[in-house]
Amino acid sequence: MTQRRMHLVAYLKTGPTANHPGAWRHPEATLGDIFAPERYEHIARVLETACFDACFYADTFGLPDIHGGNFDAYLRYGGQITYLDPLMILPVMARVTKHLGLGATLSTTLMPPYHLARTLASLDMLTGGRAAWNVVTSATNLEARNFGMEQIPSKDQRYDRADEVLEACNDLWDCWQPDAFVMDRESGVFIDPAKVRYPVHEGKWFRNYGPLTIPRTPQGRPVFLQAGASDRGREFAARWAEMIFCTPHSKADTIAFYDDVKSRMDRYGRRPEDCKVLPSFAVVVGETEEIAQEKYAYLQSLIDPEAQRMLNSSLMGADLSKHRNVESFAAAKGNQGISGSIDRVMQLMDQEKIAFQDAVAKPRDLLVGTARSIADHLEDFFTSRACDGFIVWPTIFPSMLEDFSTYVVPELQRRGLFRREYAGATLRENLANP
Amino acid sequence: MTQRRMHLVAYLKTGPTANHPGAWRHPEATLGDIFAPERYEHIARVLETACFDACFYADTFGLPDIHGGNFDAYLRYGGQITYLDPLMILPVMARVTKHLGLGATLSTTLMPPYHLARTLASLDMLTGGRAAWNVVTSATNLEARNFGMEQIPSKDQRYDRADEVLEACNDLWDCWQPDAFVMDRESGVFIDPAKVRYPVHEGKWFRNYGPLTIPRTPQGRPVFLQAGASDRGREFAARWAEMIFCTPHSKADTIAFYDDVKSRMDRYGRRPEDCKVLPSFAVVVGETEEIAQEKYAYLQSLIDPEAQRMLNSSLMGADLSKHRNVESFAAAKGNQGISGSIDRVMQLMDQEKIAFQDAVAKPRDLLVGTARSIADHLEDFFTSRACDGFIVWPTIFPSMLEDFSTYVVPELQRRGLFRREYAGATLRENLANP
Repeated sequence: MTQRRMHLVAYLKTGPTANHPGAWRHPEATLGDIFAPERYEHIARVLETACFDACFYADTFGLPDIHGGNFDAYLRYGGQITYLDPLMILPVMARVTKHLGLGATLSTTLMPPYHLARTLASLDMLTGGRAAWNVVTSATNLEARNFGMEQIPSKDQRYDRADEVLEACNDLWDCWQPDAFVMDRESGVFIDPAKVRYPVHEGKWFRNYGPLTIPRTPQGRPVFLQAGASDRGREFAARWAEMIFCTPHSKADTIAFYDDVKSRMDRYGRRPEDCKVLPSFAVVVGETEEIAQEKYAYLQSLIDPEAQRMLNSSLMGADLSKHRNVESFAAAKGNQGISGSIDRVMQLMDQEKIAFQDAVAKPRDLLVGTARSIADHLEDFFTSRACDGFIVWPTIFPSMLEDFSTYVVPELQRRGLFRREYAGATLRENLANP
Repeated sequence: MTQRRMHLVAYLKTGPTANHPGAWRHPEATLGDIFAPERYEHIARVLETACFDACFYADTFGLPDIHGGNFDAYLRYGGQITYLDPLMILPVMARVTKHLGLGATLSTTLMPPYHLARTLASLDMLTGGRAAWNVVTSATNLEARNFGMEQIPSKDQRYDRADEVLEACNDLWDCWQPDAFVMDRESGVFIDPAKVRYPVHEGKWFRNYGPLTIPRTPQGRPVFLQAGASDRGREFAARWAEMIFCTPHSKADTIAFYDDVKSRMDRYGRRPEDCKVLPSFAVVVGETEEIAQEKYAYLQSLIDPEAQRMLNSSLMGADLSKHRNVESFAAAKGNQGISGSIDRVMQLMDQEKIAFQDAVAKPRDLLVGTARSIADHLEDFFTSRACDGFIVWPTIFPSMLEDFSTYVVPELQRRGLFRREYAGATLRENLANP
């Protein structure tokens, strides 16, 4: 029997900060190139050399200003901001790679569905079948306000609309038969119109008529990535997601999440293996445990506690400089906040017996050690069926992802837990053949 | 006194057909690569080698289905369709060029303004200041229906909204002071929040709050390209456009258009030279006049009259298979139709004394001749102050643009009418220093 192998996907931002609000201060973090295409070409090459399944760009459609009611702290401390539109970067990364999956975060609440379908089909064409869509419904009022709404709709409304958006997009992607192109110069027939249909969509949330102007793409549709953690979010993921990105606190929390999501899939006619559950983590690797611990201590010293709180204000959807306990926070957040981020803080309070205001100021755990001890940890999660692989998010960019690729990936490959070369021609094929 | 020099901009589509609905049948037209990035990299290199100021992609946000009330003729005859989203292609073209301006057509009626501002700022960053925006308001109900509307709003409403979109986008592009980035690792200050402001927009048509997540770009804002031909469109162009793309029938029509647009600019505090008027044309070049005429006859033999009508149905906004005279057409078009395309047909009827139904079946004029005779014609238009340069649209792709670059550009350079190298670092600088 073939050994089960894990998937690796990198979480990226078009900026120097992901979830670690101090790492940009590290001497190895590159800052001067955040608007330069070479930065993104470099990381694409690093990830493909390491045989990552894919990478994707997280995104927020605005400048976070929840903490303190303005954007001051977020800018000052170097919060996680999307600078360049990731859709401008992915085509550039596509041209220096051949296998790496390339994902964009796009909001079903904020963006016109026809545009989503066309852009993602274009990306799939251009990459030869490597496009992924991190489907988000958006969870902040600041984003809603940039798209003409007063506030973000309720989670249920957002997910109802998201279901409809995915139905409509799938119809748009399916409206050309594969052999529609005739291209006969002699007879002057370019396309056989009988092989294209109107995928008219008249739903509860929106209408569009189509057809899309793009024929069937190499993957038919992009690979769907999702991060639903709430009950409604998990149901959405069970129906649509091919990869789920999650952030539970402990191994037990992760197993519970894994089992729950997989158990929901049957009602949508899907097999458990059709969706890969990928908890996220970041590493500090050293040649020895001591070096790793020293590196860790230095890296964490770069985080201002206020910076951690400001990051959590954005993720959790309420001003944590003002709301210092669960009740006050919960009353203030309204429709805002990412369930996975809130769950993680609640699990942290519960398991480590700490107060809310300490939990929201606590930096996210990092995996610290040698290549071997980190691989041990990943292997344990993987073989315990807590996951099907991992999302790796960078602390120091790009050196953390370089270190992970240099140190940890070969150790995982030596153990037979990760590919040494790509088996498939498309991202979906690589997900099926890790 | 320095000799006045012309500008050259290429009109492109992400597909094999532009305004000539038979050219895809020509043996030199490449068809198999319309979804391949190499096709677009190639044309970018050709245009930059020829020192073109810029290229831009025309776009329609849907599959034209006006002619005959369905898309059959449009698909069968190989109508002008946007296949890949041009915004996915421009970053790829950016990586193989250093000077060529890169423009996208984006609709102020259909797309969220915050998204427009972010994407275009990203393109300007990524290209080092070479982004252009062909501002369109969209003129078909089929596009409206793909974006949740029943029909396209009236021209006045569309242009009123377009004014507001450009005001809001300019505010978004201006909300970061150039020195906002501090990036001091020691003190932990990434950005000085005092140097970023909210460009709150609460207008008649939409709201957004900002700020944009992108600092000031190399050009500050993309170069605005526009094709307004109606009175309202010309007024919009006089206020905003830095290049105007037009399609008058005769030299006299072009001079009248030129004078009219330039005369409108003063009321917006702009000088005539701040906007370049660029009529469009396509060429058939031969080593001798006889070769050119033979090539022309062959090329035109590839157009089915029905294909020309179907193309005009889309451009003019009513079904020309059904509406065979001006009155019937005018009554049917509603808010649809591009004024420039309609004007050109009216000028044709008037000057050539032909009926409406013959005018709409008549292929667009091409400029046929040797490098010298074509350069004579362009020079005559240019020195007669009918224009500041030209938009070149391809018949046979890519060979017509290759031929133009090989034959005609050197002749224009020999006459001192066109640059031999780029003078500026950005597109706007090249427009100021042809």
